[in-house]
Amino acid sequence: MKALVYDGVGKIKVVDKDVPKIQEQTQALVKMVRTTICGTDLHIIKGDVPTVDRGRTLGHEGIGIIEEVGNEVKNFKKGDRVLIACITSCATCSFCKRSLYDACKKGGWRLGHLHDGTQAEYILMPFADSCLYPVPKGADERSLLVYSDILPTGLEVGVLRGHVKPGSTVAIVGAGPVGLAAGICAQFYAPKSLVFFDKDEYRLEVAKKIGATATYKISNAKEAREASKEHHGDIDGFDVVIEAVGVPQTWDMCQELVGIGSHIANVGVHGTGVNLAIDRLWPRSTSISMALVSSHTIPLLLELNKAGKINTNELITHDFKFSEIEKAYDTFGRAAETKALKMNIEFD
Amino acid sequence: MKALVYDGVGKIKVVDKDVPKIQEQTQALVKMVRTTICGTDLHIIKGDVPTVDRGRTLGHEGIGIIEEVGNEVKNFKKGDRVLIACITSCATCSFCKRSLYDACKKGGWRLGHLHDGTQAEYILMPFADSCLYPVPKGADERSLLVYSDILPTGLEVGVLRGHVKPGSTVAIVGAGPVGLAAGICAQFYAPKSLVFFDKDEYRLEVAKKIGATATYKISNAKEAREASKEHHGDIDGFDVVIEAVGVPQTWDMCQELVGIGSHIANVGVHGTGVNLAIDRLWPRSTSISMALVSSHTIPLLLELNKAGKINTNELITHDFKFSEIEKAYDTFGRAAETKALKMNIEFD
Amino acid sequence: MKALVYDGVGKIKVVDKDVPKIQEQTQALVKMVRTTICGTDLHIIKGDVPTVDRGRTLGHEGIGIIEEVGNEVKNFKKGDRVLIACITSCATCSFCKRSLYDACKKGGWRLGHLHDGTQAEYILMPFADSCLYPVPKGADERSLLVYSDILPTGLEVGVLRGHVKPGSTVAIVGAGPVGLAAGICAQFYAPKSLVFFDKDEYRLEVAKKIGATATYKISNAKEAREASKEHHGDIDGFDVVIEAVGVPQTWDMCQELVGIGSHIANVGVHGTGVNLAIDRLWPRSTSISMALVSSHTIPLLLELNKAGKINTNELITHDFKFSEIEKAYDTFGRAAETKALKMNIEFD
Amino acid sequence: MKALVYDGVGKIKVVDKDVPKIQEQTQALVKMVRTTICGTDLHIIKGDVPTVDRGRTLGHEGIGIIEEVGNEVKNFKKGDRVLIACITSCATCSFCKRSLYDACKKGGWRLGHLHDGTQAEYILMPFADSCLYPVPKGADERSLLVYSDILPTGLEVGVLRGHVKPGSTVAIVGAGPVGLAAGICAQFYAPKSLVFFDKDEYRLEVAKKIGATATYKISNAKEAREASKEHHGDIDGFDVVIEAVGVPQTWDMCQELVGIGSHIANVGVHGTGVNLAIDRLWPRSTSISMALVSSHTIPLLLELNKAGKINTNELITHDFKFSEIEKAYDTFGRAAETKALKMNIEFD
Repeated sequence: MKALVYDGVGKIKVVDKDVPKIQEQTQALVKMVRTTICGTDLHIIKGDVPTVDRGRTLGHEGIGIIEEVGNEVKNFKKGDRVLIACITSCATCSFCKRSLYDACKKGGWRLGHLHDGTQAEYILMPFADSCLYPVPKGADERSLLVYSDILPTGLEVGVLRGHVKPGSTVAIVGAGPVGLAAGICAQFYAPKSLVFFDKDEYRLEVAKKIGATATYKISNAKEAREASKEHHGDIDGFDVVIEAVGVPQTWDMCQELVGIGSHIANVGVHGTGVNLAIDRLWPRSTSISMALVSSHTIPLLLELNKAGKINTNELITHDFKFSEIEKAYDTFGRAAETKALKMNIEFD
Repeated sequence: MKALVYDGVGKIKVVDKDVPKIQEQTQALVKMVRTTICGTDLHIIKGDVPTVDRGRTLGHEGIGIIEEVGNEVKNFKKGDRVLIACITSCATCSFCKRSLYDACKKGGWRLGHLHDGTQAEYILMPFADSCLYPVPKGADERSLLVYSDILPTGLEVGVLRGHVKPGSTVAIVGAGPVGLAAGICAQFYAPKSLVFFDKDEYRLEVAKKIGATATYKISNAKEAREASKEHHGDIDGFDVVIEAVGVPQTWDMCQELVGIGSHIANVGVHGTGVNLAIDRLWPRSTSISMALVSSHTIPLLLELNKAGKINTNELITHDFKFSEIEKAYDTFGRAAETKALKMNIEFD
Repeated sequence: MKALVYDGVGKIKVVDKDVPKIQEQTQALVKMVRTTICGTDLHIIKGDVPTVDRGRTLGHEGIGIIEEVGNEVKNFKKGDRVLIACITSCATCSFCKRSLYDACKKGGWRLGHLHDGTQAEYILMPFADSCLYPVPKGADERSLLVYSDILPTGLEVGVLRGHVKPGSTVAIVGAGPVGLAAGICAQFYAPKSLVFFDKDEYRLEVAKKIGATATYKISNAKEAREASKEHHGDIDGFDVVIEAVGVPQTWDMCQELVGIGSHIANVGVHGTGVNLAIDRLWPRSTSISMALVSSHTIPLLLELNKAGKINTNELITHDFKFSEIEKAYDTFGRAAETKALKMNIEFD
Repeated sequence: MKALVYDGVGKIKVVDKDVPKIQEQTQALVKMVRTTICGTDLHIIKGDVPTVDRGRTLGHEGIGIIEEVGNEVKNFKKGDRVLIACITSCATCSFCKRSLYDACKKGGWRLGHLHDGTQAEYILMPFADSCLYPVPKGADERSLLVYSDILPTGLEVGVLRGHVKPGSTVAIVGAGPVGLAAGICAQFYAPKSLVFFDKDEYRLEVAKKIGATATYKISNAKEAREASKEHHGDIDGFDVVIEAVGVPQTWDMCQELVGIGSHIANVGVHGTGVNLAIDRLWPRSTSISMALVSSHTIPLLLELNKAGKINTNELITHDFKFSEIEKAYDTFGRAAETKALKMNIEFD
């Protein structure tokens, strides 16, 4: 079979690999139907994730068809169409019981990281009963691609940990795929306002299409302070601020945007520490959260999808065949130019 | 009347002032019975709190007797013995309705800060109905002194924002008055363990007396990492870490002590920013809180006091007459030597 | 001034009364602009509420203009347009601090009950700062009439106590004004489904207009059991069931509709006890709530109104002049025939 | 092997059965060390639980030693000493993921009900990884007997669903084993008061030993109303009322004891419906919960046991050999006379 692998810093290539064989009876072999590329994949290629070995098949998102299941797999059979969770969960360890699948003692982020991923014609799924979900009948599978990772990330790490509630004023710093996904999910709670901050005008336009009540084209803390003042008048900051970029500048913007008794939910993947303005935020009753996606909300998101409550059409901007995956990486890597958000990459 | 006032950086003195007169009908004039000194008072004297004017009477804690009430005061009358809340609350603004009295639009931290405080023979209490509490019949008033500030601080900012629960493993960095108060309140929730970290052996002994299950005499992040490993074996960190000092070193200790899916509750008053190790804490689902005391839990604490559920005897270490208040400041200011925690300062 | 008063069982009449005078400095005199009639007013007339004296002015909903304020009223001045909360709150008692305004020691349900109400040209509002809200600029005041009582009732007693969450399946028994209000508010939380049960076809049509995903024209427990089975297939009942009628039959319907680990939120005003099928519901982890409206969510609802997130147009079905109020009562009392939901009654 | 079986209404007997064999690879064969008898076993014998077949081995509590495990059992091996959960959980179904193990699609209450139970020399445990817990090193195994069922029942169904909090006033109606277990667990939360109501003087004495702050020897609603008034003075009822008997009279007592804005947590097993005084409780903001134990808190309880935070010595009153189990049933069945709470029944 064909697989896109990490080939050392700065390099990927498509190689031939053997179709994997079931080794544990809780595994399933899945024939991929479509996959996509995540910002994390770009981080790996840059060499930022040293735990990824050369030769590792990348990808932790996608949709496939069950080819074969181990004896202990009870929920799926050959031919079932399935959505793949980006995070692997054994379902029974103490972390899984707390819905912290990302800290699962036998799982966590494995696909395309410690275990061959979804950018290949077949994938061997660990703990299939816990990590695969039936594709709802009649679902638009192309749009479901964002349910593997970015939609649960936006909901769990941005909206739920951010405690968005009816009437909340919500600021999202960063209108990339994950920030937009958080914005879509924030609207499950009837926020009063949903304001995006980004330096990319195109992405702010998309933000408006998915429901932003206002947008600001800015890129630093000072501008954030001014924008907040302009936006709120005499009210002091937002109830929930979601960081969806992952660099010190955007973190600092969040520290300017957060109101009294309010929350910063960090979704961005940071490569360094940041300055916590604890001397300034302490008397303002600030709380902060940061987490990896667990993916435990995928069943909820699929239910809301079936109920017609989620529209993610704006998030998938480009379509490729799997044979063109290197071109897809190139397009995704030049997002500012190509206006890329998420890629739909189809297998034959 | 006599009052202890801030007399410019590094200086305090006892002066004569006029007994204040009721100006708003929601105020009460209170004759002080006993007061105490807070670490914050020392910060003011060092010049760290520029919003305090020269000549301001210090003190935001204490117990007194109602001398006179304005027409709109409904809950108190002349002769009632009252506990004074350190935070002033109007009870009706949007922040007070969220129990964020510290952010009250007409209140917040006023006593001994923007408004003459409790280290004087009389104090004019704003919003008396909201900011005074009846001393329970038969209560030991000396021990009630810690109910004005440090006990609600420990409960609200440490224990409640830290989400201590039955079975929690709780680490407290700093065994000063506020850290100890947090430790007393943590035990309302049957934690599995309550571990103190401090460099002062005497304070760790007090920690054991108030219920610590273990103590570590350490003072930096590296030692904290080792102590945590020694304490937990293969388990990774504490469920709740309470910072009760307020300097970058103790903050860094907390970042080493916090477990996966766990919380740092900052109680310490920080004078500078700190480094947030977001790159390391992010994949560990860490949450952080920081806040000023609101004092909304004083009624709860008084109920638990009446029920005999709180023992704060260890927290008050020295007794003075108000005429000796400068000596009390000196003793409190040299705590490492004098083993001072809280002072009981009685008026004649 | 003219006032509509309770004149003994079965009788109301319009009488002349003196314009009331401010007696407490926290009161305001409000000139009414519009009022409405509640199902509770009909209960009073039937003699079901013996605490209402003959001669009492009825009404606990409405919008007015401040005519005069007491010295202690800080938030309002002559000429301000205000929404009147149906529940009176002192803001400072222990119940008000828990947001249980309905149990306020000096307030609770007073208007049109123990204190002359809003169906008069002027009303003397107790605790004006806590019980009046500024009409948002540019608001459609006619549609705001439902913000005094039924919208907060639907939100607080139905949706919040019912724990509606994203993805919830919600059943509402009774598509009258309060049930419909609960249905409008349930949609703040992106429920998966919102199903109404009523015997009145017209009301079910309105339910569809306000967002019902399905409706069932039924009226007893057996039909409810069948409808639930038809609706869910093999899934066992609804996550949240809201009772919005208040008779034993509708209560029994709720007991059939509620799923495992689910909740019945009783909003209906019951005149008798009901049978609790504890033997059957106990092993199904059922929880139940019942409460009077507190009205503490009015500020939130007004914020959502300003943000354009609430549409209550369907709830106001008829318009009258105050001089026609007896005709309005007649129309409202024959709702099945007249298709009445809420009346808009305007003063000159 | 010997087993105590249900032999039709009113009858039990000890019979010989084959030692069971592992049939599913997730099962374990456990050699019993000690077991006990539950009130539910008496209900079965009375014929109240028709789903129990004649010949079924009774018992859902106990401690044993692993004899053999299936291939999919990862957490245990031959020789491990284990505590048996009363409820069977597959750990992966949608109910188990919500911690509703009692509603588990493949589990729930099975032991001694639909599947041979613990009153036999061996038991075949389904889903061993999820339903067995290691006996802590050095634990007093006799006292651990109450961790299979009554302690998690008291915690989950009484204390957690009852929302006991620091400062709560807690009433428990029924000082039998489960009521006492609830009382022990309520103290994890520093309640202000813990008051027991029972007609049995001996049981009230035990209640005092486990921490009751007051007890009332009463048995009906009228007496409950008077006792509440006597106890509280002008305060109106308890914050949390736990029903731990399961008959209409005790339910009615709870309806008298519950305060405004308060909660009734039903733990008792009711055989009939009860009257819900919804007309009287509705304007008092009452909430009610009822549930079967899930047993998901067993790990927490074992941690607290290891930390020395739980003392259940008072709950085990009698010791028998398994060969005397019929005598043990007789003693347990005449509890009023024999002062029996829980039996310790040891295997050879």
